[in-house]
Amino acid sequence: QNILDSRLDTPIGTPENPLDVGIGIRIDQITSVDQKAENYGAVVVLRVEWTDPALAFDRQELGRDIRVFNPPALADHAAEIGTVVPAFVIHNQQSNKWIHESAASLRYDGRVLYVEKSSLTLQAPHFDFRKYPFDTQEFHFEVVSIFPSQYVSYHPINEFSGLGDLLGEEEWILDNARLETSQVTGLSGQDSDQVALIFEGHRHLTYYVIRVFLPMLVLISVGWALFFLDEYRKRIEIAGGNLLVFVAFNWAISADLPKLGYLTFLDFVLQCMFLMTGALIVFNVALRRLKVSGRESGARKLDNYAVKWIYPLGYAAIVGYAVFAYLLVP
Amino acid sequence: QNILDSRLDTPIGTPENPLDVGIGIRIDQITSVDQKAENYGAVVVLRVEWTDPALAFDRQELGRDIRVFNPPALADHAAEIGTVVPAFVIHNQQSNKWIHESAASLRYDGRVLYVEKSSLTLQAPHFDFRKYPFDTQEFHFEVVSIFPSQYVSYHPINEFSGLGDLLGEEEWILDNARLETSQVTGLSGQDSDQVALIFEGHRHLTYYVIRVFLPMLVLISVGWALFFLDEYRKRIEIAGGNLLVFVAFNWAISADLPKLGYLTFLDFVLQCMFLMTGALIVFNVALRRLKVSGRESGARKLDNYAVKWIYPLGYAAIVGYAVFAYLLVP
Amino acid sequence: QNILDSRLDTPIGTPENPLDVGIGIRIDQITSVDQKAENYGAVVVLRVEWTDPALAFDRQELGRDIRVFNPPALADHAAEIGTVVPAFVIHNQQSNKWIHESAASLRYDGRVLYVEKSSLTLQAPHFDFRKYPFDTQEFHFEVVSIFPSQYVSYHPINEFSGLGDLLGEEEWILDNARLETSQVTGLSGQDSDQVALIFEGHRHLTYYVIRVFLPMLVLISVGWALFFLDEYRKRIEIAGGNLLVFVAFNWAISADLPKLGYLTFLDFVLQCMFLMTGALIVFNVALRRLKVSGRESGARKLDNYAVKWIYPLGYAAIVGYAVFAYLLVP
Amino acid sequence: QNILDSRLDTPIGTPENPLDVGIGIRIDQITSVDQKAENYGAVVVLRVEWTDPALAFDRQELGRDIRVFNPPALADHAAEIGTVVPAFVIHNQQSNKWIHESAASLRYDGRVLYVEKSSLTLQAPHFDFRKYPFDTQEFHFEVVSIFPSQYVSYHPINEFSGLGDLLGEEEWILDNARLETSQVTGLSGQDSDQVALIFEGHRHLTYYVIRVFLPMLVLISVGWALFFLDEYRKRIEIAGGNLLVFVAFNWAISADLPKLGYLTFLDFVLQCMFLMTGALIVFNVALRRLKVSGRESGARKLDNYAVKWIYPLGYAAIVGYAVFAYLLVP
Amino acid sequence: QNILDSRLDTPIGTPENPLDVGIGIRIDQITSVDQKAENYGAVVVLRVEWTDPALAFDRQELGRDIRVFNPPALADHAAEIGTVVPAFVIHNQQSNKWIHESAASLRYDGRVLYVEKSSLTLQAPHFDFRKYPFDTQEFHFEVVSIFPSQYVSYHPINEFSGLGDLLGEEEWILDNARLETSQVTGLSGQDSDQVALIFEGHRHLTYYVIRVFLPMLVLISVGWALFFLDEYRKRIEIAGGNLLVFVAFNWAISADLPKLGYLTFLDFVLQCMFLMTGALIVFNVALRRLKVSGRESGARKLDNYAVKWIYPLGYAAIVGYAVFAYLLVP
Repeated sequence: QNILDSRLDTPIGTPENPLDVGIGIRIDQITSVDQKAENYGAVVVLRVEWTDPALAFDRQELGRDIRVFNPPALADHAAEIGTVVPAFVIHNQQSNKWIHESAASLRYDGRVLYVEKSSLTLQAPHFDFRKYPFDTQEFHFEVVSIFPSQYVSYHPINEFSGLGDLLGEEEWILDNARLETSQVTGLSGQDSDQVALIFEGHRHLTYYVIRVFLPMLVLISVGWALFFLDEYRKRIEIAGGNLLVFVAFNWAISADLPKLGYLTFLDFVLQCMFLMTGALIVFNVALRRLKVSGRESGARKLDNYAVKWIYPLGYAAIVGYAVFAYLLVP
Repeated sequence: QNILDSRLDTPIGTPENPLDVGIGIRIDQITSVDQKAENYGAVVVLRVEWTDPALAFDRQELGRDIRVFNPPALADHAAEIGTVVPAFVIHNQQSNKWIHESAASLRYDGRVLYVEKSSLTLQAPHFDFRKYPFDTQEFHFEVVSIFPSQYVSYHPINEFSGLGDLLGEEEWILDNARLETSQVTGLSGQDSDQVALIFEGHRHLTYYVIRVFLPMLVLISVGWALFFLDEYRKRIEIAGGNLLVFVAFNWAISADLPKLGYLTFLDFVLQCMFLMTGALIVFNVALRRLKVSGRESGARKLDNYAVKWIYPLGYAAIVGYAVFAYLLVP
Repeated sequence: QNILDSRLDTPIGTPENPLDVGIGIRIDQITSVDQKAENYGAVVVLRVEWTDPALAFDRQELGRDIRVFNPPALADHAAEIGTVVPAFVIHNQQSNKWIHESAASLRYDGRVLYVEKSSLTLQAPHFDFRKYPFDTQEFHFEVVSIFPSQYVSYHPINEFSGLGDLLGEEEWILDNARLETSQVTGLSGQDSDQVALIFEGHRHLTYYVIRVFLPMLVLISVGWALFFLDEYRKRIEIAGGNLLVFVAFNWAISADLPKLGYLTFLDFVLQCMFLMTGALIVFNVALRRLKVSGRESGARKLDNYAVKWIYPLGYAAIVGYAVFAYLLVP
Repeated sequence: QNILDSRLDTPIGTPENPLDVGIGIRIDQITSVDQKAENYGAVVVLRVEWTDPALAFDRQELGRDIRVFNPPALADHAAEIGTVVPAFVIHNQQSNKWIHESAASLRYDGRVLYVEKSSLTLQAPHFDFRKYPFDTQEFHFEVVSIFPSQYVSYHPINEFSGLGDLLGEEEWILDNARLETSQVTGLSGQDSDQVALIFEGHRHLTYYVIRVFLPMLVLISVGWALFFLDEYRKRIEIAGGNLLVFVAFNWAISADLPKLGYLTFLDFVLQCMFLMTGALIVFNVALRRLKVSGRESGARKLDNYAVKWIYPLGYAAIVGYAVFAYLLVP
Repeated sequence: QNILDSRLDTPIGTPENPLDVGIGIRIDQITSVDQKAENYGAVVVLRVEWTDPALAFDRQELGRDIRVFNPPALADHAAEIGTVVPAFVIHNQQSNKWIHESAASLRYDGRVLYVEKSSLTLQAPHFDFRKYPFDTQEFHFEVVSIFPSQYVSYHPINEFSGLGDLLGEEEWILDNARLETSQVTGLSGQDSDQVALIFEGHRHLTYYVIRVFLPMLVLISVGWALFFLDEYRKRIEIAGGNLLVFVAFNWAISADLPKLGYLTFLDFVLQCMFLMTGALIVFNVALRRLKVSGRESGARKLDNYAVKWIYPLGYAAIVGYAVFAYLLVP
């Protein structure tokens, strides 16, 4: 897996003088965002920089300032002269890591630059779909030191970090990338330094407008218009059809998300509309029974003042409440 | 695969004095739970600790207390000085194991700490869906010694075991993690020690409420309301539509589970309702024939006392019996 | 892949005195059964035992009776002292083989025990779906010697073979496991020994009863009941709906099986019912034309004696014939 | 990947006297045929034979006639004595190649036999679906020499080539396997020898008959029968339903094939029937307008002579033309 | 991964005299084009040529002009004599790269030819679906030097580049392949040379015509014809059915594309037609209310001049505007 971790038979850094390591994380491609599995795939360039005087060499003798190493050869070289390389692990790595290419260079004064390009899948456990599809999600890429903080300390290299220009992701607008440094419990069970690239994503809404909101708006509007044809039985049929359309939308939308333990904005809207449509049918059944039992004028009055206006206003109220309760909270 | 298992050319422990090995199992991520295949994916940190005096070294001579090894280098070192490392196998491993990172450290007195972070898929053969979706399932992660119990004995390390804080699993509520030690038949065909991390999961029910129970409740309620319109033929159509909806739900639900050899709670409810709906149709056909043959008042009486109340009470009885027979048993 | 196959630079056994090798095959898990691809996945423990005097060592000198080897180290050791290890290939292996763990031990008298736990996918070309879903299928796991039979002969080790207790397979009831020894044409093009673990599986029928047979039975029964409402046009509509339901079932069932070159039991039943339903519609059209052209009483008589009884008896006859022709043959 | 290709630091063969290499290709299993991706998976046994006097050894000295090598050991041996092994590449390989097992043997006179069993995915770019589902497809397995033809020439080994007995493929009938030798442009950019195993497949038609042709025939026949009920509006509804069924079939069938740039036989039939059904509806609308405007007898006459006979004859003509234009051409 | 990159312990080229490297890229197979993930799979032959006098050898001494190397052996040889090989990375690589075969040859004067055949998945971030399905897409294959431009400069080898004859891709017509040289920021963070193979693809339209355009045209035409039956309620039903068909098409089409942040041509047409159909229903409801309230002649007049002609002309106008706004822009 990680070439830097081999030959760790000498302690690196000391509690008095930990090795200072710079970490740069640049995400070149987002290969996928899987909402159901709560992970994302990335092609990433990792840059690790540190200065180890033990690795310094005589530029006159060698005839040049810089030596280029294949990373295992650098680890071999470090082991031979009795020093080590600062190994790391990607904390939220989920799949295997396929290394496309890696290289290391060593300056005469012991400055090492390690670069690695690889593709992997990363856990994204911070996904919260409550405002779906108006949600903003946070993505992490966390590099943790194998060695405890007292031996190796990390600092971020901001100029070589961030998101690339051609991420190749169409659904999400990704931005607000930043590096954050912290201490977490490492593999050794002790506090270890972590540098994390954190970025945020929100959705292009066109997809949801033309696949969900517009069809539902049109179907509901048409359903309402049909109410003006004034026949209770036909209305019941139309509302019954709407019920089935709601169930279908309900299932279609749920196919994109994990089986959540809470309602999303869209779930809430759909469920309320579904319940209201069910109630409307029952109400129309009651009206029709009024009519059949000879109280048609009462039914008609109730109808004019209630059903025709309850229908659009009820739907609007549901949307309004959902916006207030789901989207306007922080 | 497992780096610890190499160079086993010396016997470790003896029947009089088996090597005592501590095993810690911490699950950091649950990457998937596949009910159909009855397995789950995990990112796990394994910790193995033991003390082998043969590995002790002179701290004065080396100038430090601890040596850090790349695991194969430790196995090499052990082989050179004529001792071995206690190899293990994950009993319910199903896929390949991708090791993200591994490291080993050796204290001057021969104390070894081996840590390994990896992702793999594990069999979960204890799944029992009888109470689905109100079921509680048990997940295992079983580490078994390659060597028989008389040579290597295991003890659990509870402080480095359990479930992580960000498992990244939305559908299941996972808890009640505990380590259990036992003896099983190992690869050698003899009794070998096993330490297993066992934890339990039950489901967030929101998903099932809004995708299954609520739609069904509304559709059944509406269907019942429509019965008050008092037309046998319309009723038959409505109940016929319900029949098809039941078949669709039946298939949709079965897509999430394996092809079981028994009925789940949900299956039982759906099948009973399906049969009752079929019976209702036949009953309405009979009523209509009564009416056609001029005995409408008898049909109407039967209808008032039977169909209208059989419908809701029958459905309620089915649910009640299912709860009693499926959910209230231990 | 297979560690045992390296360093084969000395002939093992001779035509006069072939090396006798014991083969044990124990299947611990069935990870999948893919009917469409006709393969299954398994986690298997292979055990290979043989005695090679050339590998014997002096127990006094070494101070112990048994040496434990990492398998490549054993192959190295064998190559050094001028002997070899009996390589094998899994004849019906389909995917890569991921070795979870392998180990080898050598007794002072040259007795070798090699154990390997691995996961892989295996071809199951003997699947025959004619009696589906009442079919019994045969699964094979075939281990073939790389060396011709005159050099290496195999015998089964029954006590370490068979199926495990927790296969983790819900759909199939697997049993009747047995080892069979035979000779097949090996990689070398000559007769080579084979030991095969053969087991059989039949299905839990609950799934098929509640997803296929019960829905169809209810739909057909209801359809029949509706015939007693005595209207030709309504009947035609109902039968037309049944036609579409048959088509949907037909496609849904075919999704589980490969594109077969023959009819299964279920296919046969569905196709016959489909054709009979089509014929019923045509017959009802004819009846209605009789009625329209003023011969209603003739139509009614034909109806009473034919359609109402042809419908249930025809369906029953189809099922009966299918059972006789498909299930009762050996 | 290919073990034979290592240590090529001596030229093999010469333009005057190229090395003559025999190639055998036997396909043991067809693991999949993916029409959409135009590839197929296979488990294949490759056999490579050649005689290199430089590899000859003294049978008296060694005490036997044949040495068995692990292939990399043979390549090492060849490199040591200053000769090479004839490397090859599989021209239409698409995936990684997983080698199940490989072995090589060397006779005292320098005769080498290399055998390799592996699973891989192969491109099948010759697929042509114009006659689908009555099409015959050609599958290739192409082995090309790394070295130009002037250095290495290939000849086929027919006795160890062909298709196995248990391919495990249900949908296709595969036969007519043959080896063909040719010259293609190799990796070096020069003409290199190629031996290809070519075989052909046609489909079991049962699947298409019972899933496509029979349902369509029954639905069309029933639709025609209903025309005799003589109501223009009902007919329009029936034909409209057929339209939607055609669209559904159209999409279901397209799911099995790539997005082709031409019409298949089945596409052509479906599209024509679809268009004809659309035209029939328009025609019935016209008839009804005739009737509404008082010219019912004219409509009825037109109807009897046209619609009732156009319907079956038109469909038959479409099928007939399609058979003529698609299936009877070479 | 890339064999050429090892042993880079000597600087290659100098800022005054960079090493001149020729790059050839030939794509043999397109294994997949995944529009949703915006990537494509390819089997590619890479050719790298350069002349390094340090690698020259004495042809008399060796007895031949050319030495053939296994690539790692060449890198070893280069490292031994104190020179290096020009490593590269594929800039838009997304998956692991599986090398089918690689080889290297060295001429007596230091001319090196490295060839590699491999399969991998490549990012295609330039996809733009605005004109879908009449879109033309650009595919890249970008080879970037590991070393900055001042040390290694690239030039394209056009005669060994381009697209193969049997790409095995049915949906796309791929052409206009060309090599482009540029400088990009490499792994080292400095400007590095890049040679990219760029090619374009447009779609075979048959698929879209027979699966989308023709069904929609027929359904719309039939819908229009039915308007001449002159019943407002029937029309409303027909248009309502069309609404649902539009929703189904909308979802079916979206399954092939990523969740875009803009409308495609096809989306625009479907959405407009959807909205117009909704408006038509509302209009017909109004007409019917006119009729019910006794103003039937006015309704009829409005109908004749408006609905019947608005329907076809509106649809035509939508298509016309979409062609103008989407397809005729550059």
